Amino acid sequence: MAAETKMHLGVTADMHVHLREGEMMELITPTVDSGCISVAYIMPNLVPPITTIEKVEDYHNQLQKLSPNTTFLMTFYLSAKLTPELVEQAALKKVIRGIKCYPAGVTTNSDAGVDPNDFTSFYPIFEVMQKHGLVLNLHGEKPASKQSELSENEEDHIHVLNAESKFLPALFKLHKDFPSLKIVLEHCTTKDAIDAIIKINQDKLPSEPVTVAASITAHHLSLTVDSWAGNPINFCKPVAKLPRDKQALVKAATSGAPYFFFGSDSAPHPVSAKTRLTNVCAGVYSQSHALSYVAEVFDQVNLLDKLKGFVSDHGLSFYEISEDKLISKRTVSLIKKETKIPEVIGQGDLVVAPFKAGDTVQWVAEWD
Amino acid sequence: MAAETKMHLGVTADMHVHLREGEMMELITPTVDSGCISVAYIMPNLVPPITTIEKVEDYHNQLQKLSPNTTFLMTFYLSAKLTPELVEQAALKKVIRGIKCYPAGVTTNSDAGVDPNDFTSFYPIFEVMQKHGLVLNLHGEKPASKQSELSENEEDHIHVLNAESKFLPALFKLHKDFPSLKIVLEHCTTKDAIDAIIKINQDKLPSEPVTVAASITAHHLSLTVDSWAGNPINFCKPVAKLPRDKQALVKAATSGAPYFFFGSDSAPHPVSAKTRLTNVCAGVYSQSHALSYVAEVFDQVNLLDKLKGFVSDHGLSFYEISEDKLISKRTVSLIKKETKIPEVIGQGDLVVAPFKAGDTVQWVAEWD
Repeated sequence: MAAETKMHLGVTADMHVHLREGEMMELITPTVDSGCISVAYIMPNLVPPITTIEKVEDYHNQLQKLSPNTTFLMTFYLSAKLTPELVEQAALKKVIRGIKCYPAGVTTNSDAGVDPNDFTSFYPIFEVMQKHGLVLNLHGEKPASKQSELSENEEDHIHVLNAESKFLPALFKLHKDFPSLKIVLEHCTTKDAIDAIIKINQDKLPSEPVTVAASITAHHLSLTVDSWAGNPINFCKPVAKLPRDKQALVKAATSGAPYFFFGSDSAPHPVSAKTRLTNVCAGVYSQSHALSYVAEVFDQVNLLDKLKGFVSDHGLSFYEISEDKLISKRTVSLIKKETKIPEVIGQGDLVVAPFKAGDTVQWVAEWD
Repeated sequence: MAAETKMHLGVTADMHVHLREGEMMELITPTVDSGCISVAYIMPNLVPPITTIEKVEDYHNQLQKLSPNTTFLMTFYLSAKLTPELVEQAALKKVIRGIKCYPAGVTTNSDAGVDPNDFTSFYPIFEVMQKHGLVLNLHGEKPASKQSELSENEEDHIHVLNAESKFLPALFKLHKDFPSLKIVLEHCTTKDAIDAIIKINQDKLPSEPVTVAASITAHHLSLTVDSWAGNPINFCKPVAKLPRDKQALVKAATSGAPYFFFGSDSAPHPVSAKTRLTNVCAGVYSQSHALSYVAEVFDQVNLLDKLKGFVSDHGLSFYEISEDKLISKRTVSLIKKETKIPEVIGQGDLVVAPFKAGDTVQWVAEWD
C-alpha cells in the first residue's frame, strides 16, 4: 500500500455536517463539494432549530442551490415541538432521513434540546421512526454537573471528560426498548463509547442488520486533551479525550467494521468566535480537507486499504443510500500530493480557520 | 463566622508569584501591594532565567522600587548553569530563599528546565540547599508524551490531566534522598498530590518539622476542566482537573494543616496572548484580588476561620519568615464588601484580564 499514490474511494459520504445559515452557509456549503464529499448528512441546529417540513424543505433547497451536485440528507431537531404525526408525514414525504437528538445545553445551539435522563416522552416519536426506518442521531453526552451542586460522591460528577461515558447507559436502554430503531452515536470520542458499539454489535446475530453504529470525526482521530488545552482552534464538543481514547478511535475507524463510519462534525465558527477570553465556540471546521485528514491517520497506521469502507461504504450502507438516491454519481480518488491547508477560509469579516490551518498534509481528494 | 464582616489576616503571604520584566513588571508589581499581600515569593522564569547573584539582586531591586513595602523573597531557576558553589554563596549572602525547578517545556518560559526523570545531576546542589535551609520549589509535572511516540501501554501515556500524578514518585524519591530538604510541591491540582503531601507528613514524627509542603492557588480552588474548556482566561499549567480534585484542594486548604499554604501562581499575560487560535499562553492572573478569591471559597464551606492559617501563618512558618525579616510589619484585614473585579488591568497595548474578570466578589482585603 505504501507505494500506491492513488486510491479509489467511490461515492464519499460525510454523515455529520454543519452548514449553518446566511453568509456562513454561503461560504461553507461549497466546501462540501470542493472537499470531494458526495453525500452529506445535515445537522438541524439552526436558530431556531429545524422542526417543520416547510423549514427542512426550504433549507434543503438553499443548500442544493449552493452545491448542486451534493446529495444532502436532511434531519429534524428532536424537541417538544415534534409530534409523531409530523414525523410520520416527513418520513412519507422523504424530506428527512433522521432526527438529531441534542441534550440541552451541551454544545452550539443545543438550548432547545432534550433531557437525556428521560427519553420516554419521545417514545411515540421513536416508534414512528423505527417503523419508517428513520435514523436517530445522538449527541451522546450528559450535561455537566453545576459547580455549586457537586455532591460528595465522585460517581455523581459529570464533566467534559466523562460526559460521553455517562451517557452510554441511555444508549443501551434506547437500543433495548427499540431494537430495530437505527441509532448513530455521533462523533464518539472515548474508548468506552467504542466498546459499547462493539458490544451491541457483537451481541446481535450475524444475520441481523446493524442498527446501532457510531460516527467518528477526522479531528478526533488526531487530537487528545493536550491538543485543545491552549489551542481553541481544536476545541469542540465532545472534547477530545485521552491518548488511549484516540487510539481506540483509530483502531475502530480502521477496523473495517461496518458500524463505524465517517461523520466530520465539521462545525464552522468565525475566527472572532474562536479567539475570545471566555465562551469560545465549540467546533472544529474540517469540511474543506476532511478526506485528507482522515487519509493521513489511516496512512500512519498502514491501513489505507480500510479508508473506502470508512468514508464511503459503511455510511452509505447504514443509511441505505442506493445509487438511485444520489443527485450525482461522481466518485472520488485520493491522490498522494503534499498540500498546504490554508490559514483561513473566507475573507473580510467572515473568516473560518480550518483544522490544521497552515499545516501540510500528504493526501488530497479529487473528483474522478 | 457567617455574621462577621471583618477578619484579621495578619501578615499575608503569597508564596508563588510571577512578576515578569519590563512593562509587564511595572504594571503588575504594584498589584501585589494593592492586593494586600505583605510577603511575595518570586518566580525566576525570566528570559533568560535567573541563575546568577547579580541578576537576582538586580531583579529584587527593581521589584522593591516598584513596591517599597513588599517583602520580596527571591529564587534561582534550577538549571545546569547553577553550581553548588554558586548556590552556597547565594545562600550565605541571603539573596535567595529557594530554587525553583521546572521540568523542561511544561509551562511559560520553562525551556531551560530539567529532566524530571533524573534529578541526580542536581544532588550536589540539593545537598547545599539542605545544609543552608533553602527551599526547593517543584513544578510537579512530567512532560507530556509526544503524540507520535504513544505506546500501546496506557500506563506510559502522560498528558495534561495525569502529568502531576505521574510526577509524584519523583517527589517521594527526593524526600527520601533528602529528608531534611524543604520541598514545596507548587500549585498542586490533584487529589493524588494532596494525598501524597498528607502521607509524607503523617509518616513523620509529630516532633519533626514540616519539610514537605504544597502551595495551592486561588484559581485551582474554583476551577475544574470544564472551566478552562472554551475559556482561555482560565487556562494555566498545571490545568485544573476534575471536580473530585477541586474538592480535595478545598478540603486541604481549609483543613488547617500547616503543610498547605497559599501561592497564587498569579501569571500575567497580555490579553493578546490569551486570545489566539493556537498556543494560548498558560497562566491565570489573580494578584490584584487574590485574597478575595480565596476568601470566597473558604466562606462557601463556612471555614473562614481557617483563612488566616492558609494565607499567612503556614507559609510564613514554613519559610521561617520572622518579623525581623519583614520590610514592613503592616497587617491585613478582610472586609465583607461586594466588589466588582475589573475587566482588565492596564491600558493601551498592555492589558491583562484578571481571574473572574467582571464578576462580583463578596470580600475584599484592606491594609490595617
